[in-house]
Amino acid sequence: MEIYKILEKVRKEKPLIHHLTNWVTIYDCANIVKVLGASPVMAHSKEEVAEMAGLASALVLNIGTLTPEFVEAMKIASKAANKKGIPVVLDVCGAGATKLRDQKCFEILNETRVDIIKGNTSEVARIAGEEVHTRGVDAVEVEKNLLDIAKHLAETRNCAVVITGKEDIVAANGGHYFVKNGCEMMAHIVGTGCMAASVIGTFAAVEKDLVKAAAAGLCCFEVAAEIADEKSSGPGSFKLNLYDAVFKLDRKQIDERKSISEE
Amino acid sequence: MEIYKILEKVRKEKPLIHHLTNWVTIYDCANIVKVLGASPVMAHSKEEVAEMAGLASALVLNIGTLTPEFVEAMKIASKAANKKGIPVVLDVCGAGATKLRDQKCFEILNETRVDIIKGNTSEVARIAGEEVHTRGVDAVEVEKNLLDIAKHLAETRNCAVVITGKEDIVAANGGHYFVKNGCEMMAHIVGTGCMAASVIGTFAAVEKDLVKAAAAGLCCFEVAAEIADEKSSGPGSFKLNLYDAVFKLDRKQIDERKSISEE
Amino acid sequence: MEIYKILEKVRKEKPLIHHLTNWVTIYDCANIVKVLGASPVMAHSKEEVAEMAGLASALVLNIGTLTPEFVEAMKIASKAANKKGIPVVLDVCGAGATKLRDQKCFEILNETRVDIIKGNTSEVARIAGEEVHTRGVDAVEVEKNLLDIAKHLAETRNCAVVITGKEDIVAANGGHYFVKNGCEMMAHIVGTGCMAASVIGTFAAVEKDLVKAAAAGLCCFEVAAEIADEKSSGPGSFKLNLYDAVFKLDRKQIDERKSISEE
Repeated sequence: MEIYKILEKVRKEKPLIHHLTNWVTIYDCANIVKVLGASPVMAHSKEEVAEMAGLASALVLNIGTLTPEFVEAMKIASKAANKKGIPVVLDVCGAGATKLRDQKCFEILNETRVDIIKGNTSEVARIAGEEVHTRGVDAVEVEKNLLDIAKHLAETRNCAVVITGKEDIVAANGGHYFVKNGCEMMAHIVGTGCMAASVIGTFAAVEKDLVKAAAAGLCCFEVAAEIADEKSSGPGSFKLNLYDAVFKLDRKQIDERKSISEE
Repeated sequence: MEIYKILEKVRKEKPLIHHLTNWVTIYDCANIVKVLGASPVMAHSKEEVAEMAGLASALVLNIGTLTPEFVEAMKIASKAANKKGIPVVLDVCGAGATKLRDQKCFEILNETRVDIIKGNTSEVARIAGEEVHTRGVDAVEVEKNLLDIAKHLAETRNCAVVITGKEDIVAANGGHYFVKNGCEMMAHIVGTGCMAASVIGTFAAVEKDLVKAAAAGLCCFEVAAEIADEKSSGPGSFKLNLYDAVFKLDRKQIDERKSISEE
Repeated sequence: MEIYKILEKVRKEKPLIHHLTNWVTIYDCANIVKVLGASPVMAHSKEEVAEMAGLASALVLNIGTLTPEFVEAMKIASKAANKKGIPVVLDVCGAGATKLRDQKCFEILNETRVDIIKGNTSEVARIAGEEVHTRGVDAVEVEKNLLDIAKHLAETRNCAVVITGKEDIVAANGGHYFVKNGCEMMAHIVGTGCMAASVIGTFAAVEKDLVKAAAAGLCCFEVAAEIADEKSSGPGSFKLNLYDAVFKLDRKQIDERKSISEE
C-alpha cells in the first residue's frame, strides 16, 4: 500500500471533516485534522447537522461525553452522510462502561449506516456482543482473540472495524491489516484515541477502500508519534511534538518506519 | 496610533471579558485573554449571563458550536451588555455554511446591539448579504472588494467590522485600518481566528475608539505570532510560543514590526 | 507526612476519577489525572452519571460553566458517590460572582454529601457565608482571616476545605495544613485551579485522610509547577513543562522542595 500517496491526497484535496464529538478532546480532534492539511468542522445542533454533513467529505462521531439529545443529532448527521454517500466513523468511546453508552451505540448502528467502527479492545468487544466491562474510557484486557472479534463484528455490521492498542487491528470482510507503529507515550496523554478516529475519518474522505484508509491513517499518525516521542521529555512536550511531526510527515519517514502487515 | 499604550492599559486594568463561545476553542479564548493580562470568564447559562455581563468590561460572542438555546443566552447577555454600555463582539464563525448560522447571526444583530462584527472573508460577506458559501468554518474567496463589503456592513449595522485574512480589514463609518502582520502558520492551527475575537474584545474593553481597539489588538496578536513563528518547528510548538510571545510582548517589538495603515 | 508514598499509590492503583466539570478546562482536568498515572473519565448525562460514579474511586464536581440541568446531573452523581462511599470534591468555581453559582453550590452541599470543598479566597469565603464578590472566576481579597473561614466552613459542613492561593490552606475539624509551594506563573494561565481540584480528587481516591490527601496532592502539583517554571520562557511553555514535570515527579524532588506545615 502506498501510504504516503493517501496523505498527499489529504493535503491536496483538503477534505472537510464534520465531527460530532466529545467535549474533552474536541480541540485535539479539530487540530489533528488541520495539521494533516484537511479542514475540520464541529457542529452538533440538530437544526444544522444534516446541512453541515452535506458539505463534508466524511463524518466522525464520538460518544465520549454523550447525552441522549446529542446522540439524536448524531443520527440525523449520520443519515445525511449516508444519503450523500460519505463515510461515517463511529468512535465507541466508553462502550462497556455504562448501559447508556452501549445502548446508544447500538441505536446509531441499527438506525443509520456506520462505515467504520473504532474503539479500544474492550469497547469494540462490547459492541461485538462480548460480556466485557470498560473501565471508564480505558481499555480492559479481553480474553477472546481480538482479530476474531473484529472480523465477526465487521461481518455482522458489514463495515470496517478498528481496534486500537499496541498493535492495531483493521478488519473488514475479506482482509485485515495489523498496524504496529506507535509508542507507549500515546497512552500517557488524553486524546490520542479520539484523534485516531479523526485521522481515520480524514483518510477515509479521500480513499474509498476504507480498510486501507484506516490502516494508512493509523500508520501515519503513529509514525509521527514515534518521531515526536524521540524529541520529547514527557507527555506535555510529546503532544506538541506530535502536532509538529504530523504536519511535517514525509514519504521517507513513513517508508523507513512503517510497520504494517496485510493478511 | 500608540498600540503599546492600549496593551499597557489592558495589563494595568485587567478587564473582565465575558464570553459565550464555542466548545472547540474555549480554552484558547480564555487563555489568550489571560496571557494578555486580563481576566476571562466563560458563562452561558441563561439564568446567569445577564448578571455576569453586568460584571464585565466587554462581551465576546462566538457561534462556532451554536444551538438555538445557546443563542438565546447570547441575546440575553448582549442585551445586558448593551444596557451596561460595554462593547459586544460577535464572531460570525461559520456564517455562510448553514442556514442556522446565518439566521442566528441576523437574530443577534437585529435584536441586540453588536459593536464589532468579526469573521473571515466569506463569513462577513455572507452577513453583509452576499451570496457566498463558507466551507465549514474555513474562508472561501469572495469576488467583491472586501473593503467595500466591510464599509457597507459597518454603515448598515452602525458598528465596526473586522475581516481577518492575510491582510486584516478593520472598518467603521469614517475610517478604516489595514493590519498586515501575522504569519502563514496562524492558518495551520485551529483557534487563531477565535482568539483574535477575544483579543479584540479585550482591547475594546479599555479603548473606546473601537476601530482603533480592534486594529491595535490584531496588530499585537499578529506581531506576537510572527515572533512565535520564528522560534517554532511546526504548529504544535507555534501555539505554545504564541502564548509566550503575547505574554512578553513589549513596546520595542511592536514598534519594530507593526504593519498597520490607516485611511 | 510521606507525600511521595501517596503519589506512588496513585501510580500503582490507577484510580478512576469521574468528573462533571467545566468546558473550559475539561481537557486539562482529564490530562492532569492521566499524567499523575490515574484514569480520568468525564461523563455528565443524568442517564449514566450514577452508574459511572459507581465505577469510580472519586468524584470531582466543578461548576465553572454550570447550567441548572448540569447541576442536576452533579447531584445524581454525588448521591451515587455517597452511596458507594467514595470522596466527592466540589470546586466552587465562580461562587460569589452570580446568584446562580451561590445557589447551586448550596443545593449540592445541602442535598448531597461533599467531602472536600475547594476554591480560591473569595469563592470559599462566599460559600462560608461572607459578603464577598468574586470577579468572574478570579479571587478577590478577603478581609477576614482565611484560616478562620476555612475552619468554620469545615466545621459547619463537616468536610475538608481547601483555599488555594499563594499559600494554600487545607483545613478540617481537628487540624490544618499550609502548603506554600507553587509559583507565580500558575496564576498567568487558565486551568491550574481546576487541575488542582482534579489532583485533590485523585489523591483522595487512594488516601482516606482527606486533609492529608488534599495537602499532599497540592504539594506534588505545586512542586512540579516550580520545576516547570524554571524551564519555561512564558505561560505556553510553562503548561507543557508542567505536564512533563508531574509525569516525572520523584521522591527526591518532593523531599527537597516541599514546603508544607501542619498545625
